[in-house]
Amino acid sequence: MPDYRILVEYDGRDFEGWQVQAAGSRTVQGSLEAALEQVTGERVCVTGSGRTDAGVHAEGQVASFQLHKEWLPDVLQRALNGVLAGDVAVREASIAEAGYNALRATASKRYRYRIWNAHRRSPLRAARFAHVPRRLDLEAMRLAAVMLVGEHDFSSFRAAGSDVKSNIRTLHRVEVIGEPGGEIAVVVEGSGFLRYMVRNLVGTLLEVGHGARSPDSVAALLAARDRAQAGPTAPAHGLTLEAAWEASADTGRAEHSFDKPEP
Amino acid sequence: MPDYRILVEYDGRDFEGWQVQAAGSRTVQGSLEAALEQVTGERVCVTGSGRTDAGVHAEGQVASFQLHKEWLPDVLQRALNGVLAGDVAVREASIAEAGYNALRATASKRYRYRIWNAHRRSPLRAARFAHVPRRLDLEAMRLAAVMLVGEHDFSSFRAAGSDVKSNIRTLHRVEVIGEPGGEIAVVVEGSGFLRYMVRNLVGTLLEVGHGARSPDSVAALLAARDRAQAGPTAPAHGLTLEAAWEASADTGRAEHSFDKPEP
Repeated sequence: MPDYRILVEYDGRDFEGWQVQAAGSRTVQGSLEAALEQVTGERVCVTGSGRTDAGVHAEGQVASFQLHKEWLPDVLQRALNGVLAGDVAVREASIAEAGYNALRATASKRYRYRIWNAHRRSPLRAARFAHVPRRLDLEAMRLAAVMLVGEHDFSSFRAAGSDVKSNIRTLHRVEVIGEPGGEIAVVVEGSGFLRYMVRNLVGTLLEVGHGARSPDSVAALLAARDRAQAGPTAPAHGLTLEAAWEASADTGRAEHSFDKPEP
Repeated sequence: MPDYRILVEYDGRDFEGWQVQAAGSRTVQGSLEAALEQVTGERVCVTGSGRTDAGVHAEGQVASFQLHKEWLPDVLQRALNGVLAGDVAVREASIAEAGYNALRATASKRYRYRIWNAHRRSPLRAARFAHVPRRLDLEAMRLAAVMLVGEHDFSSFRAAGSDVKSNIRTLHRVEVIGEPGGEIAVVVEGSGFLRYMVRNLVGTLLEVGHGARSPDSVAALLAARDRAQAGPTAPAHGLTLEAAWEASADTGRAEHSFDKPEP
């Protein structure tokens, strides 16, 4: 019973998120499981490094599954890409160590939130960027971003009504890249995320960027542990799960980046 | 009767090209004329720096029109973007010199053809890149590209059945950028283009990249003036009209680039 590890890219617009839900909803996990059944004849359960919400994209979602039969990873990858719809594809496939589980194995993930910060709309950016017409104060956003780095109780930024054991998470990086008036990215890297956490952080940083909230107030917001005090949830289509990686013996970090050209 | 100059961005996928055609076809020119009528009450004719074909994108198409009433360019731009569909927008608007005509005034244009050269599909690149799974020999393509630069009779690369007075055009730049196995761009800059010329050039360069045609053969192909001898027309969705510019008094070149952040 070999375990497989795949790296998956998808355009999230026509998916109701990663996780299989009610019958009839189109999800990435469901599409992969259907493709695996079609290719291998086996009914399997695919586990992701984490769930992405409806409309969120992924350049490097990591997922795992087990098959009875052993497949050459390249053959399996090509067969899956042959039956998957155009908005989802397997970038890489490999045989993993026995018992590999993408959810447990993933030590860190990186998300990128794209913002088009110009008054006028940009049709060619509409699929991947949230449009923020009003000019942002990036210096203020950067001051606020620094306060989010580290181990914190992120209750103020979790989805309303979500119920998990602990709301404590560690962010290694919250960086605001770019220039006002053009393309801006908020890059968030951490060991774990609450539901809607990145989009709620971005919604709050946008309020800081518009002067509706001071950079300093973000510390008080963390301390308040109250979702009602944070900013709105930024739209899903600006968000991309860029990479997930696990602690690696040699480098301490096996990252799967989108930018590296493939052989 | 002031003349206006606008810079237009569009996602070409849902347009049947730039130019107004039979009733019922959705074109960029038609969308702009309808938006202008809705905003100003005037029925005008919009002239582009050139026609783009069905499915071709534009980051910087230049267009001109005349209105009876004088509008503040910013006000006109915002009003147009308010009524235009999401896949087309006015990036800039200005009052031009009297008698300005975008077709006549444009001295050069730059096109970029995007190729995703990896075996596996890339869902997030599917809208803008042509997928070429087989590894390309970029050195061979570069040798062939050099032969296309300069003034030539491009009869071998015009659309079959097209009928223009002269097939002689001048290309200032034909450059193949990138690495095999990843993102590749063919950048073509010139003073004028025949119908399908860029896509036919790219289709021929792809044959060179696959070893089906030698780089040297491109010189003979130009001399043959025979469309039947050139490669196939590369798909429309890989092509973007990036910029158009006119001779400018001070710099010799007033370019409208997509990459420069807006104020």
